[in-house]
Amino acid sequence: MNFNFRLPTLKVYLIIFSFLSVFFLTVCKDNNESSTSDTELTELQLRALKISSPMPDNAFLEGMDQSDELIELGKMLFHDPRLSKSGTLSCHSCHNLATFGVDNLPVSIGHGWQRGVFNSPSVLNAAFHKSQFWNGRAETVEQQAGMPILEKFEMASTEKHVIEVLSSIPQYVTMFGVAFPNDAAPVSYKNVETSIGAFERTLITISPFNDFLAGDENSLTDLQKDGLALFIETGCHTCHRGQVLGGEIFAHFQTPAERASGNISPGRFEITEREADKHFFKVPSLLNVVHTYPYLHDGSIWDLSQTIVLVAKEMLNKDLTNEEVDLLTEFMGSLTGVLPNETMQLPLLPASTSDTPLPDFSL
Amino acid sequence: MNFNFRLPTLKVYLIIFSFLSVFFLTVCKDNNESSTSDTELTELQLRALKISSPMPDNAFLEGMDQSDELIELGKMLFHDPRLSKSGTLSCHSCHNLATFGVDNLPVSIGHGWQRGVFNSPSVLNAAFHKSQFWNGRAETVEQQAGMPILEKFEMASTEKHVIEVLSSIPQYVTMFGVAFPNDAAPVSYKNVETSIGAFERTLITISPFNDFLAGDENSLTDLQKDGLALFIETGCHTCHRGQVLGGEIFAHFQTPAERASGNISPGRFEITEREADKHFFKVPSLLNVVHTYPYLHDGSIWDLSQTIVLVAKEMLNKDLTNEEVDLLTEFMGSLTGVLPNETMQLPLLPASTSDTPLPDFSL
Repeated sequence: MNFNFRLPTLKVYLIIFSFLSVFFLTVCKDNNESSTSDTELTELQLRALKISSPMPDNAFLEGMDQSDELIELGKMLFHDPRLSKSGTLSCHSCHNLATFGVDNLPVSIGHGWQRGVFNSPSVLNAAFHKSQFWNGRAETVEQQAGMPILEKFEMASTEKHVIEVLSSIPQYVTMFGVAFPNDAAPVSYKNVETSIGAFERTLITISPFNDFLAGDENSLTDLQKDGLALFIETGCHTCHRGQVLGGEIFAHFQTPAERASGNISPGRFEITEREADKHFFKVPSLLNVVHTYPYLHDGSIWDLSQTIVLVAKEMLNKDLTNEEVDLLTEFMGSLTGVLPNETMQLPLLPASTSDTPLPDFSL
Repeated sequence: MNFNFRLPTLKVYLIIFSFLSVFFLTVCKDNNESSTSDTELTELQLRALKISSPMPDNAFLEGMDQSDELIELGKMLFHDPRLSKSGTLSCHSCHNLATFGVDNLPVSIGHGWQRGVFNSPSVLNAAFHKSQFWNGRAETVEQQAGMPILEKFEMASTEKHVIEVLSSIPQYVTMFGVAFPNDAAPVSYKNVETSIGAFERTLITISPFNDFLAGDENSLTDLQKDGLALFIETGCHTCHRGQVLGGEIFAHFQTPAERASGNISPGRFEITEREADKHFFKVPSLLNVVHTYPYLHDGSIWDLSQTIVLVAKEMLNKDLTNEEVDLLTEFMGSLTGVLPNETMQLPLLPASTSDTPLPDFSL
């Protein structure tokens, strides 16, 4: 073979060398910076990392199907009111993504204007909770997703209705086939749950506190840092700990409204029928807590400061000063995060057909 | 002055000349193509342009404020359930953007599970209608927007409630100030109407039929073209004409369900009290008609073909063959368009404060 290259001049070598030098200097500088921040975490960051940890990209478990098609299908089902008996209520009705995954009501309004039993928790970051609902009656977001659809005072539907609706709409039938390629009958209630769950596993909000945990010492204000330190010193993290600062354990709790009325919810006892679980409720997550009012399992308190005072007294027997409450509230402001734009985008739902069951407003 | 350039060689001149030649040839080719399509519209395109016209970017009238801040504020108000008495219903509840601006119910479900009187028309392209509501009781989308908020069986709110809610939320107060910089008291009910109207004036869907009108002869299938020709020959455009193929005139119409029950709506008579307006209703737009079922002012027919047969008989005294109905349905499929991604993105609503009135579920 004959290589017919003109050899570059020394000048060209020098130019190439200069470019490479600048390139490597830049790369090394970046590496250097990030390794510095890893090794030089502040004492407060190290303490915070003992009670929580930075968010992963999603909440999928190992081996779970995470295909885009599955997640998109789940998003459509999450927003589709045809899953309800009346054709007016969807998951989104009570877990409004425009209001941080809640409806900001003491209890939700469902089929026939019936009221729910407990305050609707946020669907954001829900997959990180060790169990679902205030009384933990579902383990995963997939199990959870299927339940309000069938609940008489929520979406009031039946599995049969849901499957009839979805089977009657060609675009859904195709999408289920693509999302569940190994399934002989892909349009199943179980797969509805799996799809909605898959979408919910992507509903992760990234807050300034998360950035602080991830190494950015400047993502919190000085007041928020003082609030975080106080949060740990006060012992709030005893219950509000883990990935979402809550959602891990159950704790004994009666609200002032329950005590006043004498109508005290049995809580987790209703599920386990164990005396030890009487009046026990899942500790709620504190992520986006500024936006997830009203608070407590009966949604009976609207004010965050008031809730902080009450819970500190009830759970830790601590009387907080006004200044302490303000600092804790400041810290909680750093727990607000946003969803990615593409997640906030409404899906366009496929049209019904003549086979689609009609909405039924009756009780 | 001393110009110290090295003169390029002939070779370089040739290279530059080649590039310029290719560039101008490309530009001229494009110009040529587009001018061809302008002057060489097909006969069907010319006929279609006599009954409708391509969509503008938005539906703002001359001199109207079109600031991004005003539109964004309107979008937030459109999605905010706190404008309703119960805190559960927003404009979006019945004009769901995920379902082409309708709720796909015969009549909407409002406060206390009360039912509406007429089928909820789509909010998409609504600003092009010459009047709003089935009986034309509002002229503009701005006037329209303010009415369901106050209607007892819809959002059941009061102007006082709306202003108290918005005034209690600092982010809204700031946004009203920016959107209405010359207004001494920007948080007013009139400005709520103006904001929501401004957002609605951007809800324009671009369909294949629109592209056909705009010059793209290939945007319709052959069947759709045959359907369009039949649409004009049959005389459907007598009523369904203009920017949105409807929304311009009122026509006498009684539905089979009304006749069967004997409960025939007075229609526009209720507004004007003129005998001539008895049982007159605004001709609905046909844009996105495949998705805006159920049809007619009482939402009593779910099937599009059945509606076409009925309306052709009622309005034009024509008995359509099955083949004709199929062709018209094909054409109507070309009227479906989508909203831009940024419009479909849910806004993030600001948190309430301790001054925000609480939701009230009572009737």
